[in-house]
Amino acid sequence: MTREVIYPVKVEFGDCDPARIVWFPNFFRWIDAASRHFFIECGVPPWHETEKLLGVIGTPLVDTHASFVKTASYGDTLHIHTFVPEWRTKSFVQRHIIRRDGERIMECDEVRIFAGRTETGIKALPIPEDIRRLCS
Amino acid sequence: MTREVIYPVKVEFGDCDPARIVWFPNFFRWIDAASRHFFIECGVPPWHETEKLLGVIGTPLVDTHASFVKTASYGDTLHIHTFVPEWRTKSFVQRHIIRRDGERIMECDEVRIFAGRTETGIKALPIPEDIRRLCS
Amino acid sequence: MTREVIYPVKVEFGDCDPARIVWFPNFFRWIDAASRHFFIECGVPPWHETEKLLGVIGTPLVDTHASFVKTASYGDTLHIHTFVPEWRTKSFVQRHIIRRDGERIMECDEVRIFAGRTETGIKALPIPEDIRRLCS
Amino acid sequence: MTREVIYPVKVEFGDCDPARIVWFPNFFRWIDAASRHFFIECGVPPWHETEKLLGVIGTPLVDTHASFVKTASYGDTLHIHTFVPEWRTKSFVQRHIIRRDGERIMECDEVRIFAGRTETGIKALPIPEDIRRLCS
Repeated sequence: MTREVIYPVKVEFGDCDPARIVWFPNFFRWIDAASRHFFIECGVPPWHETEKLLGVIGTPLVDTHASFVKTASYGDTLHIHTFVPEWRTKSFVQRHIIRRDGERIMECDEVRIFAGRTETGIKALPIPEDIRRLCS
Repeated sequence: MTREVIYPVKVEFGDCDPARIVWFPNFFRWIDAASRHFFIECGVPPWHETEKLLGVIGTPLVDTHASFVKTASYGDTLHIHTFVPEWRTKSFVQRHIIRRDGERIMECDEVRIFAGRTETGIKALPIPEDIRRLCS
Repeated sequence: MTREVIYPVKVEFGDCDPARIVWFPNFFRWIDAASRHFFIECGVPPWHETEKLLGVIGTPLVDTHASFVKTASYGDTLHIHTFVPEWRTKSFVQRHIIRRDGERIMECDEVRIFAGRTETGIKALPIPEDIRRLCS
Repeated sequence: MTREVIYPVKVEFGDCDPARIVWFPNFFRWIDAASRHFFIECGVPPWHETEKLLGVIGTPLVDTHASFVKTASYGDTLHIHTFVPEWRTKSFVQRHIIRRDGERIMECDEVRIFAGRTETGIKALPIPEDIRRLCS
């Protein structure tokens, strides 16, 4: 059993393309919101606080893999089911399953890191145990 | 005679809505790019440099008024003609005329300020004479 | 007294720009959703039905005028208050006031038409009395 | 040797998020444009013509896999190098490599189909030999 958080989305007219279906980059827009929403709902403090406590400034995306199963259109209400199926040493997989009335619309596996600052940029930090516990 | 700068836009499939025409918020996306492009082409240094020299951190928008004259769709190439028809004491009007082969598609008058930092936020600075000269 | 409908918006990280505030074209994205939401909440049938009943295929925007009063950022919840302050013969004004905890963030007056098809494009129809009654 | 087409992108201020880097859904926006641009540059007629000739109404995305290698920010000019490394029976892989001055920023493999209409929706058509030849 792992912690799952649901993020609702109402599909609007402007989210759709001339084929009358959701233009696919919009799915990634919603998934990015669902990713951040997951941590907030799990009780992880905002990144400007974790920076002071743990050195964590955010969870940049390093890899994403999505399958488009069914189309969606305006008027639809979607629900993004988000959880972390796998914690690695310095990265984790966040899975997002988008459903409409239970029916699967799209599925996406993201690999993200907990990023900390270095002198010249950012680096992947070891998974903070406190955050892992809150999100599991 | 005043300085005019042209910013080209190729309309893509994903910029259009189920009515097969440009979804109007995308016009504002392009106009914001044209606004910044105007200053660069006029020779104004990037805002992180003007901040040191003049205290100017950017040109936030305070008011915008747009008229939609004709529709556009994917495959179209548009040209945004940008200039400053009016310099006021602490704000200026930037006008953007969007054309397709000379034909007017959309017209937009923006009121923007040159913003400087205060202790608690930002404020409108008097128009810097150097910038005004470059952009006229 | 006129009918007012409220559309809620949660501001997400990706809606904000490097200045950490809402990038202004996103306000128009939300206002377009609020505009359509207003008619649905007032009981107006979807446009593919009104096309058969009244010849109305939608409410294209012809003119918009917006004032940006305060900035907003991610984590904010906004509410768009939408109503029609003025019905003209062949167009109407739709007003959108965006608030955060009662405080005014942005205000926008749109001029829209009820569009019908012609042989070569669209035209503005006289305001349908049934729709006007539902929305007043 | 296979046909490669390059699509240029100028990164704008509004494409970037509060971390001052490109907000990742925008990469997919540009990749979708590069995908369509590829077929046009290869000499494939627009989809409304291929529909009459071949029954092909477009190339919907069924699966996408992207790796984010380096960040990009406003002021950058990117080039998306697009080609088809693999033709399958009823689908194909379209690869997009995004570079900045030769340096790799992002890489994306898309699985797309040539879609034709059925009574109730769409289906994957066998790869049209004429299109395959133009794009190889």
